[in-house]
Amino acid sequence: MQKNFVLSTTDRHSKARRGQLTTAHGVIDTPAFMPIGTQGTVKAVTPRELRELDAQIILGNTYHLFVRPGLDVIKHFGGLHNFMNWDGPILTDSGGYQIFSLAKLRKITDGGVEFQNHIDGARAFISPEIAMEIQAALGGDIAMALDECVPYPCEYDYAAQSAELTTRWAKRCLEWKRRNGETAKRGLADSPDRGFADSMLFGIVQGATFDDLRQQSAQAIVELDFDGYAIGGVSVGEPEEEMMRAVESAEPFLPRDKPRYAMGLGTPPQLLEMIARGMDMFDCVLPTRLARNGTAFTTTGTLNLKNAQFALDKSPIEENCACDACREFSRGYIRHLIKAEEILGLRLITLHNLHSYLNLMKRARTEIESSTFDQFRKAFVAGYKTRDPMMVE
Amino acid sequence: MQKNFVLSTTDRHSKARRGQLTTAHGVIDTPAFMPIGTQGTVKAVTPRELRELDAQIILGNTYHLFVRPGLDVIKHFGGLHNFMNWDGPILTDSGGYQIFSLAKLRKITDGGVEFQNHIDGARAFISPEIAMEIQAALGGDIAMALDECVPYPCEYDYAAQSAELTTRWAKRCLEWKRRNGETAKRGLADSPDRGFADSMLFGIVQGATFDDLRQQSAQAIVELDFDGYAIGGVSVGEPEEEMMRAVESAEPFLPRDKPRYAMGLGTPPQLLEMIARGMDMFDCVLPTRLARNGTAFTTTGTLNLKNAQFALDKSPIEENCACDACREFSRGYIRHLIKAEEILGLRLITLHNLHSYLNLMKRARTEIESSTFDQFRKAFVAGYKTRDPMMVE
Repeated sequence: MQKNFVLSTTDRHSKARRGQLTTAHGVIDTPAFMPIGTQGTVKAVTPRELRELDAQIILGNTYHLFVRPGLDVIKHFGGLHNFMNWDGPILTDSGGYQIFSLAKLRKITDGGVEFQNHIDGARAFISPEIAMEIQAALGGDIAMALDECVPYPCEYDYAAQSAELTTRWAKRCLEWKRRNGETAKRGLADSPDRGFADSMLFGIVQGATFDDLRQQSAQAIVELDFDGYAIGGVSVGEPEEEMMRAVESAEPFLPRDKPRYAMGLGTPPQLLEMIARGMDMFDCVLPTRLARNGTAFTTTGTLNLKNAQFALDKSPIEENCACDACREFSRGYIRHLIKAEEILGLRLITLHNLHSYLNLMKRARTEIESSTFDQFRKAFVAGYKTRDPMMVE
Repeated sequence: MQKNFVLSTTDRHSKARRGQLTTAHGVIDTPAFMPIGTQGTVKAVTPRELRELDAQIILGNTYHLFVRPGLDVIKHFGGLHNFMNWDGPILTDSGGYQIFSLAKLRKITDGGVEFQNHIDGARAFISPEIAMEIQAALGGDIAMALDECVPYPCEYDYAAQSAELTTRWAKRCLEWKRRNGETAKRGLADSPDRGFADSMLFGIVQGATFDDLRQQSAQAIVELDFDGYAIGGVSVGEPEEEMMRAVESAEPFLPRDKPRYAMGLGTPPQLLEMIARGMDMFDCVLPTRLARNGTAFTTTGTLNLKNAQFALDKSPIEENCACDACREFSRGYIRHLIKAEEILGLRLITLHNLHSYLNLMKRARTEIESSTFDQFRKAFVAGYKTRDPMMVE
């Protein structure tokens, strides 16, 4: 398989990049937003709807799928693509982030992490090698190295040691893939997918909020030679300024010809700021999670559709929006659905929010191609108001 | 407007009828199943999906819509069709059934019912005239007269008095419509709908489980001359045999040239039995409500998809089923979604169940046309197993 990343345009006024990443399941135009399919489904959305939304890649959460339904089930179905009936690209995370944020009784050693899952409390152990094995079984197109994601705030010494641990783990992930990639096929003979060797593996830069640690981590991870690089440990509660600096510290050390993925963020203005700082890929729970609480994203900010002001509002969530929710339903009706706790309400806002995020990336790509990205970004950020304190989780 | 009911075929071996009911928003082929749109949405389903499922009519619950979002909101949006973006026929119930089953502190007099709603406890009063006024504002194609639905079991004397009250109320409903139908237009000038005079009004037969009361009620209601007739007070907890008898007692007194609606039932075999007893229209929460609990309907019985036996099952909910859930997803995947409490799981089962009910009606219509309905019914009922104690609510 031809796995590659081609940069077609780089912005003259910012570090924004327009590229294409080719995977075994299709091409991803970057900058790209990846809807999150936590438990084998993007919440409340069908694969067909994802295709209609022009989602080019989704993210699968290794930890959640490992806990439920479990690897045996997903292997039996021939991998995650077959299981969930999504034939586009999938990126699987390493499971590390959820182990550190959801699981209980964690014990981290050089060998790996011991934990109890949050569903039934069963004990499990994950090492860099096991994280690879699991991701090989899931059969995504892009796998992530196991890393330790430290919380915010974090002491310098702990952050330094942790970043070094992440580097050692990254090396073991690469090593495992080199040794086992060809043989680590997914369960079923009728699977159209090829071995794990055809998947890409991304390394993750850590270093908390310390410029020198971010820099050292980036250099160490890049030296190992991955198919792409992620900035991890951002959007973990730090001020936005620190988040931007973490990316700015690492970015100069990332190779130009590999995709860069800023993990787990963010608001629409944050995505544009990250694109301006040279990032290509994003994933975030905000569009789907806030939808379930009645919050819609528009190009001028968020709307809490539970508010009484929308009760008689005949306009769509956003004027001129091309999504199905906006073409067919009013704010007043959607408000009623959300107030009455009707599933259709969160379905409609989810569709709108995903469209909003995916469309923002489409717009960013066009603006980069037209060398107008920087103006666009500035105007968008200036016009965007965060009306809802729920915005940042 | 031409509102009419045409019977094209009547079965030689049973009382089954094949007909067409023409309303302001389209034609309904009977026997017909009406998905329930309790709070202005068939739960978890979009109007577009309903059209794709070939649903020809849906039911709107007057009581729920009256409580939330309230009539002012729905009037402001120009009626229920506009509010929920469903342009097909709508039948609205009178609200009576929910007042008797959900609301608190009910006080029934000849004038009407005083109650406190189950959401915020606000007091309200509904009379036959108010029930008509509300339904005129909702703007459905078929309205129902206000009735008292007595519980099971019920004393003879109470059932007799109650059926008489229902007849007096029915008369007042007709009277209100005759006087106000032309002027009771829905709120908006841009509404494509015409006045309430164009809507049909159905009367409801009561009489609990007493043959003579059912007969008397049917005669009294039919004498008032409605556009259609419903059998109410069935599927309220009585044994299936009593339910069948209640319908059998009333049916001979219903005019042949008007549609008959058996309210609030039932399982797939029960629907076929009701069709064989001369009923044309049905509504039931089972397909949507049980879906949310993981129960799927098939032609051979129900499946509880939560069961461990389905964890590795690659087959669809039902072989050869043409619904989207069965064409695209496995039992194993849907089981995982339900166990993980993912909305997509109940969405898929809801689609399948509605398809199953609607398709059963389609099949029944074809079988009536081919004079093979009675064999079909017997074979279906014999082959249907209720595996799940949740079946009857």
